[in-house]
Amino acid sequence: MHSTAVAMATAIDAQRLWQRHMAMAEIGATPKGGVNRQAFSPEDGRARQLLISWAQALGFVVSIDDIANVFIRRPGSDANAAPILTGSHLDSQPTGGKFDGAYGVLAGFEALQAIHQAGVTTKRPLEVVVWSNEEGCRFQPGCMGSAVFTGKLQVHDLLAVTDKDSITVDAALQATLHCTAPLPRRSPGFPVAAYIEAHIEQGPILEATGTTIGVVTGIQGMHRYTVEVLGEEAHAGTAPLQTRKDALKAAAAMVGALEELMADDTDTVRFTIGRFEVSPGSPNTVPSRVFFTIDFRHPDQTVIDQLTSQIAPVCRTHARGCEVMVRQISAASPTHFAPAFIDTIRQHAAALALPHMDIFSGAGHDAMHLADVCPTGMIFVPCDKGVSHNEAEHARPDDLAAGARVLAACLVDLANR
Amino acid sequence: MHSTAVAMATAIDAQRLWQRHMAMAEIGATPKGGVNRQAFSPEDGRARQLLISWAQALGFVVSIDDIANVFIRRPGSDANAAPILTGSHLDSQPTGGKFDGAYGVLAGFEALQAIHQAGVTTKRPLEVVVWSNEEGCRFQPGCMGSAVFTGKLQVHDLLAVTDKDSITVDAALQATLHCTAPLPRRSPGFPVAAYIEAHIEQGPILEATGTTIGVVTGIQGMHRYTVEVLGEEAHAGTAPLQTRKDALKAAAAMVGALEELMADDTDTVRFTIGRFEVSPGSPNTVPSRVFFTIDFRHPDQTVIDQLTSQIAPVCRTHARGCEVMVRQISAASPTHFAPAFIDTIRQHAAALALPHMDIFSGAGHDAMHLADVCPTGMIFVPCDKGVSHNEAEHARPDDLAAGARVLAACLVDLANR
Repeated sequence: MHSTAVAMATAIDAQRLWQRHMAMAEIGATPKGGVNRQAFSPEDGRARQLLISWAQALGFVVSIDDIANVFIRRPGSDANAAPILTGSHLDSQPTGGKFDGAYGVLAGFEALQAIHQAGVTTKRPLEVVVWSNEEGCRFQPGCMGSAVFTGKLQVHDLLAVTDKDSITVDAALQATLHCTAPLPRRSPGFPVAAYIEAHIEQGPILEATGTTIGVVTGIQGMHRYTVEVLGEEAHAGTAPLQTRKDALKAAAAMVGALEELMADDTDTVRFTIGRFEVSPGSPNTVPSRVFFTIDFRHPDQTVIDQLTSQIAPVCRTHARGCEVMVRQISAASPTHFAPAFIDTIRQHAAALALPHMDIFSGAGHDAMHLADVCPTGMIFVPCDKGVSHNEAEHARPDDLAAGARVLAACLVDLANR
Repeated sequence: MHSTAVAMATAIDAQRLWQRHMAMAEIGATPKGGVNRQAFSPEDGRARQLLISWAQALGFVVSIDDIANVFIRRPGSDANAAPILTGSHLDSQPTGGKFDGAYGVLAGFEALQAIHQAGVTTKRPLEVVVWSNEEGCRFQPGCMGSAVFTGKLQVHDLLAVTDKDSITVDAALQATLHCTAPLPRRSPGFPVAAYIEAHIEQGPILEATGTTIGVVTGIQGMHRYTVEVLGEEAHAGTAPLQTRKDALKAAAAMVGALEELMADDTDTVRFTIGRFEVSPGSPNTVPSRVFFTIDFRHPDQTVIDQLTSQIAPVCRTHARGCEVMVRQISAASPTHFAPAFIDTIRQHAAALALPHMDIFSGAGHDAMHLADVCPTGMIFVPCDKGVSHNEAEHARPDDLAAGARVLAACLVDLANR
């Protein structure tokens, strides 16, 4: 096991890995150095095309499933063995960075190429996966591809979901499938022996502690809600304030009250209202509708249950005569990866003499869905100041390469068990 | 004077006036029975085309100025006399009603046709005007056409103003001018002997008191502001709340604090936040930018000065580490129409035996700009429950006709002085 790890450390090409990040970041590049490559957009399609072209040039077999998850396969010696899966996502936030998601895909692909070119045979096949719509910013819920793969969602139940321009998942997904055609089509959800995902930390801990490898022990729980507030349009100059049903003022009061509910001296609660849309949006008309999202996260299920049960009552308390509809969009419990899997990653990081530490993930990842169907783990690498979901997101080439080395070693190890 | 008023009462065709409202309301019709005919949109252009076609069919001369205000002229016996102007606007809110603005244009046109077909000669010319962009919902400020006409704004200073899709006034205005070509082009701001505007009340008073004609004595003062809040994007799952610069939570706190500032037991203050935009608008990214508008109105200049001076300080107090920019977009003092003009309208309403009362306008109108350059007055008619800036806005055909009768009588009277 240790000799394989060392072999992989040598085979990983840090410069090639970095250049692929830069090439990928040109697709959907924003003026401030980030990327806008939202799920099932033309940019998302072009990112897939680029990766597929690299894979096909190396002779790997590429396939796609009904939710457009892409799989790049290197066969194992046992044709009947379930594969070891690694990867992440290529979609981004509207003002996202170059590394969130892309790193897990490109590190997986670099590991696949390194293993392939080192002539290492594995018993199990290795597959690099691109999960569709991890971010969930354009179409909710996020982690859509991995949720479908693991049977938690069905494609046909998602087709009617729309983005803010009323484009359906159906239309956008078909366009994405079309732009990657022709590829062999697989049914979602084939058996997987293990899943391992590399990712930038998206938080400040590794950098602050001078640690290169974060051995991820789990992912905090996450709940998503939408709140719709329906009031009544009126003329800004004539309608008395006391008779108005002002959806904006009601929604603003809800935001304030939810902040009080979520107040937390330990600063562990994560409470975000990221999307907040006001209609009709005219300066001299009282708004009749506000739609907003709530993203709530915490590592402790008890706290999650206690606080989230108050969200709807708090919103209704501040309705001020408006109708209020609170809907739960998703509810993921905290994930705890298996100790044996955590050990495997820790041992390979140690064998490569890389500074490493256990770390809990604040961000959600596709790995949380995979953890329900197979042994799963994650490898984190540092990012500058912990900045992510921001065009300024940055990571260092040698840290990215270090993570890919640990990943490659783990893949060979897992695929030979 | 009284015989003319009676003649005009007979000549006004209530059914024709109503049918023209219905025909106009088909342009930009919304599913809920309102109209979406925002300034300088294709729908605004088609509304102008329809009116122009009616005017040209009756042989009236139509002209247009550089901000696309349209003028329909019936000559007087004195070729050198300044005209009496009447009209309003054809643009609407995104979810507006059939009568706001359109009534003043169509009542003016009905009066012009009635006077013309009754064979009444006037000394001064009569002109019906369509003011551009009264609503100010797409492009700010509103009352743009009348502000340019009265020299308060210059066209070249407005061309770079954009709507939320980044379309400029320049582009939209050119498209509007193009769709009405070829018309004789006039320079904005020719001399006017008097201006009189008919409008639905947009408030509940006339209906509640069983009054047909509101003799408008003035218009409350109106200030408009924009507030831009700049924070910092961050990941919803990882960024600790205490280190965030969350533009949405800051802006929501500003809304709450502004509500406290504007609290008013007499319910006279009108304070509206109608447009409120949040970027980047992703559920799992901390918002980095909020842009919102403040519409503030009051009949008393002292109160206006006192409250509006607090707007920027209150916003800054709740910035929470974000940058805050408060900009004043417009500041109109309360308008008081001349007593003699008010008398003229009152006398014609009385001569026609129509129930009438003095009324102060809560809504802003192009008349407030005209009042600075010539004798000006307004005639209100009731609308159902005072509902306006709402697709449900409604007015009764006989009330609309009554207002047009008073308007026609006033026009003949004023044009013969």
